[in-house]
Amino acid sequence: MPSDAPAIKIDNTRGYGAEVVFYDRFNQSRDEVAVPIQERSGAILVRPYDDPYIIAGQGTCGREIAQQAAALGAHLDAVLICCGGGGLTAGCALALNHLSPGTEIYTVEPAAFDDTARSLASGERQTNDPEARSFCDALLAKSPGEITFAINRERVTAGLSVTDEEVAAAMVYAFRSLKLVLEPGGAAALAAALAGKLELEGKTVAVVLSGGNVDPALFAGVIQAGEG
Amino acid sequence: MPSDAPAIKIDNTRGYGAEVVFYDRFNQSRDEVAVPIQERSGAILVRPYDDPYIIAGQGTCGREIAQQAAALGAHLDAVLICCGGGGLTAGCALALNHLSPGTEIYTVEPAAFDDTARSLASGERQTNDPEARSFCDALLAKSPGEITFAINRERVTAGLSVTDEEVAAAMVYAFRSLKLVLEPGGAAALAAALAGKLELEGKTVAVVLSGGNVDPALFAGVIQAGEG
Repeated sequence: MPSDAPAIKIDNTRGYGAEVVFYDRFNQSRDEVAVPIQERSGAILVRPYDDPYIIAGQGTCGREIAQQAAALGAHLDAVLICCGGGGLTAGCALALNHLSPGTEIYTVEPAAFDDTARSLASGERQTNDPEARSFCDALLAKSPGEITFAINRERVTAGLSVTDEEVAAAMVYAFRSLKLVLEPGGAAALAAALAGKLELEGKTVAVVLSGGNVDPALFAGVIQAGEG
Repeated sequence: MPSDAPAIKIDNTRGYGAEVVFYDRFNQSRDEVAVPIQERSGAILVRPYDDPYIIAGQGTCGREIAQQAAALGAHLDAVLICCGGGGLTAGCALALNHLSPGTEIYTVEPAAFDDTARSLASGERQTNDPEARSFCDALLAKSPGEITFAINRERVTAGLSVTDEEVAAAMVYAFRSLKLVLEPGGAAALAAALAGKLELEGKTVAVVLSGGNVDPALFAGVIQAGEG
């Protein structure tokens, strides 16, 4: 895990019986750090997004969105998805293209980590400034994955991006009105919807809220700042 | 509303277009405060729990519990319900008695406001010590309602109670593991389950989490204290 991962994520992962090994996300490659661990333990590397099975698993989210919309008799005009390496997006896009054809799919990234948005626009995988920072710790991939981008370039309408302030406002909204705990990265798509990054008037839009691993101190600061 | 109602509850209520009038919950009668407002405005008094329609509406929670359990092929041994004046309990008990016969129903109250527990045990409506205090602001009714107690005395197995500390621990659990925002009163039933107030081993038990109107400062304090 990145050494700056939320303590609650580290604790919960250890709670499932895992050994957690840290690395510096800004100066080390996760894959390279994993090699000696694999050699020592015989463990299998499971990439967090650039893996067909991971993408398929994350695609169940898109499948459920399509099924729930159908159960409501709704036709989805668009789906907004929080995007780091693009695995959740790729899985959802595959499922939605199949089950809800015509639904537009938008990725949402932190403004300083909009590699997918720029990659979609240019047609080539782009990388982020190594000096970029955002409190959306789950969305800090350096560039789109190879497999995920091959899927997303054909299926994603466009990439949107949001500032950390817009993400914080979405976390406050979720706390106050939805009564849900969202981590910053899990609130990015909601932030795009609330900040008007896409015209929503008269449309039926699904928004993926994709994680709640947020440390109490960070969450407390965000919701209290949001009172003003 | 009680003058010590959470600011977020006051704001959200005003957001729906309401005029909010305050009273002192410890020294004034809500019904008496309402009389001049009714006379001035011609408004209709809707009691928060001791009203057949309110009870019926809250009973949809019990109906949904029974339906969801049936959809899972589960037989519910027990249901734990947060209890103030007993309206949610009465509605759920009516629905569950009908749709899930044999399911035991337990109320859960703050320890200092266990009027329903004592009323169920004695068979007569009991009142709470006027000096009692608890941070479960939604569960501070002085005594069971007339209508609600007439329903509950025949249908509730027993009354459980929890301390404010046990409620705070349940709010932390909901934040960390369920990713849900619970107000103190909404976490009472979960607190009873987590604190072992009922033997759960081998049983299928539904727990009602019934509200998230909690001020950011209070919520922030609870989840940060829960880290220790």
